[in-house]
Amino acid sequence: MTKWLTDTTQKICQANREAANRRQQQLTKPQGSLGRLEQLAIDFAGFQKTQIPELNHVVIRVFAGDHGVVEEGVSAFPQEVTAEMIRNFALGGAAVAVLARHCHADFGVVNLGTVNPIEELPNVVNLQIAKGTNNFCKGQAMSEQHYTAALLAGRDSVPSHCQLFIGGEMGIGNTTSAAAIYCGLLGLEVEQAVGRGTGIDDTGLDRKKQAVQRGLQLHVKKNSGPEEILKCLGGFEIAALVGAYIHCAQRGIPCLVDGYITTAAALLACRINAGVRDWLLFSHCSAESAHKRVLASLDAEPLLDFGMRLGEGSGAALAVCLIQSALKLHAEMATFAEASVSEHC
Amino acid sequence: MTKWLTDTTQKICQANREAANRRQQQLTKPQGSLGRLEQLAIDFAGFQKTQIPELNHVVIRVFAGDHGVVEEGVSAFPQEVTAEMIRNFALGGAAVAVLARHCHADFGVVNLGTVNPIEELPNVVNLQIAKGTNNFCKGQAMSEQHYTAALLAGRDSVPSHCQLFIGGEMGIGNTTSAAAIYCGLLGLEVEQAVGRGTGIDDTGLDRKKQAVQRGLQLHVKKNSGPEEILKCLGGFEIAALVGAYIHCAQRGIPCLVDGYITTAAALLACRINAGVRDWLLFSHCSAESAHKRVLASLDAEPLLDFGMRLGEGSGAALAVCLIQSALKLHAEMATFAEASVSEHC
Repeated sequence: MTKWLTDTTQKICQANREAANRRQQQLTKPQGSLGRLEQLAIDFAGFQKTQIPELNHVVIRVFAGDHGVVEEGVSAFPQEVTAEMIRNFALGGAAVAVLARHCHADFGVVNLGTVNPIEELPNVVNLQIAKGTNNFCKGQAMSEQHYTAALLAGRDSVPSHCQLFIGGEMGIGNTTSAAAIYCGLLGLEVEQAVGRGTGIDDTGLDRKKQAVQRGLQLHVKKNSGPEEILKCLGGFEIAALVGAYIHCAQRGIPCLVDGYITTAAALLACRINAGVRDWLLFSHCSAESAHKRVLASLDAEPLLDFGMRLGEGSGAALAVCLIQSALKLHAEMATFAEASVSEHC
Repeated sequence: MTKWLTDTTQKICQANREAANRRQQQLTKPQGSLGRLEQLAIDFAGFQKTQIPELNHVVIRVFAGDHGVVEEGVSAFPQEVTAEMIRNFALGGAAVAVLARHCHADFGVVNLGTVNPIEELPNVVNLQIAKGTNNFCKGQAMSEQHYTAALLAGRDSVPSHCQLFIGGEMGIGNTTSAAAIYCGLLGLEVEQAVGRGTGIDDTGLDRKKQAVQRGLQLHVKKNSGPEEILKCLGGFEIAALVGAYIHCAQRGIPCLVDGYITTAAALLACRINAGVRDWLLFSHCSAESAHKRVLASLDAEPLLDFGMRLGEGSGAALAVCLIQSALKLHAEMATFAEASVSEHC
């Protein structure tokens, strides 16, 4: 049922990367002086198989789901906030919704399963696989059936015209799940991986560490693979993100990864299918403690370091304007010849 | 003639900073989770003396001028590039012109004095104070009269409706001038302050260091003040930036400082009139060697670190979209009460 996860991913077009690089050398600026912006333009030339790429169709999908592990007292916010925030996304008052409007992105929410039911809402696909995952301190978070459904929901959420996919997430308790995944995949110590999430106090932080420790003891063995770790410790929204990232790489669509939670999904996706890495860009370094280390493990250099720790896809949505700027510079700057500007002495 | 430089600057409105901070605590997100974006919104509340600031009128002025020190062989590009790039700005093919269009800024160029004359061009004010500055290895860069004219040109380039001022610069040889200013003001070693600018080779780098050393020996004494250092080692465009930054602070207009050259002007402006610092934001850390150290001396935390070293105002123009995002989030996000989202457990 999940065999599609390892289907071949698309290849980056090296010829168009090289053509874009040559163009960058001809634009009216000292060579290399636009730094990271030059690399972004070259990356998109490779993604889009064209010398002059464009970015008109940004898609943002926020995946939402509740977490059974919340009953261990791991979050500063009550569990009903997951459903409440879905309404806030739909009505445009949440951070990622504001940023999506600002960067003219195609924005939508996919609800995989909340404890509190939600009504029909604009821009919300309401799948409701189950009333949240199971508490991973007591058993595996997802059944085989629920796991497969979440992966497919992610896969099916990517529109065909998409030029850049941003996955966001909402789920009270999901920094706990992400921390457990990092420990399972990277062998991080619980102490290193667990941070304050939405802002839990000291005693809550202790409970969160204990919950992660119990989850690891219960589910993770030396030879546990990424799918097993995801199924046992993940959330519906994390599984959906994994499905979306893998599908994008198979379709040749680059993804801009957001923060602490989505990077867990990105890491899982790369472990399941190594070709995914070529299609991932990283938007920002989260203030959540372990994110810097995790990004390093993926050889990822995030675009921004703004001390953000909101999730939702907000950091990625913020960074879209930087990529758009890079592509506009690449397309619209004059060459030395066009502008009759003298080159090197 | 330059007595206006020390006229009082506007005060930041603390009451509106506090009101904006209270609003940030009510928006639907964990407290502090938007990191730097929250601080930017609070900064603009203080600048604009309103709880909900907006940013619709961004002004970019690129100041251009030639440098006599170029005859020492300090640049990788020939001197005629200054005038050629003014044409490229006017016709929209230069990086900063592309970015200005992208962020809907009011864009213009002020030519203070090039070796090669320029014709009438759209969006270019052609002042032509002189055919570039004098070579600071042989005498002071600017006469008293030229210095005063450049300061006033900067002051007079700020439109009244401006909500954020970005000064850019163009002048072959001006990293040499900026490096000399940093050595003079901060006591940096020539070795630390001099970088490759537009990409000079090793022998050119040696010539550049020697030129800076000679300028310092000729002009800088233990008690040299910022105005003396600017007049002796600066460029017309750097003096104009100083005039613009000081005038903005006196008018209550925040400035977004660009890179290595404009930061030299910002440092000079703060040394001449300490109140200027409150009105400065810093857009990015340049790849030019000493910039990080110089930013630290100003207690400045730049928004971006993209390895850029182009100047023109390009780094600042790139960062505008981040500030616009911060203000849109502040204005448009729903509060917990508005969205009926539960607060802390």
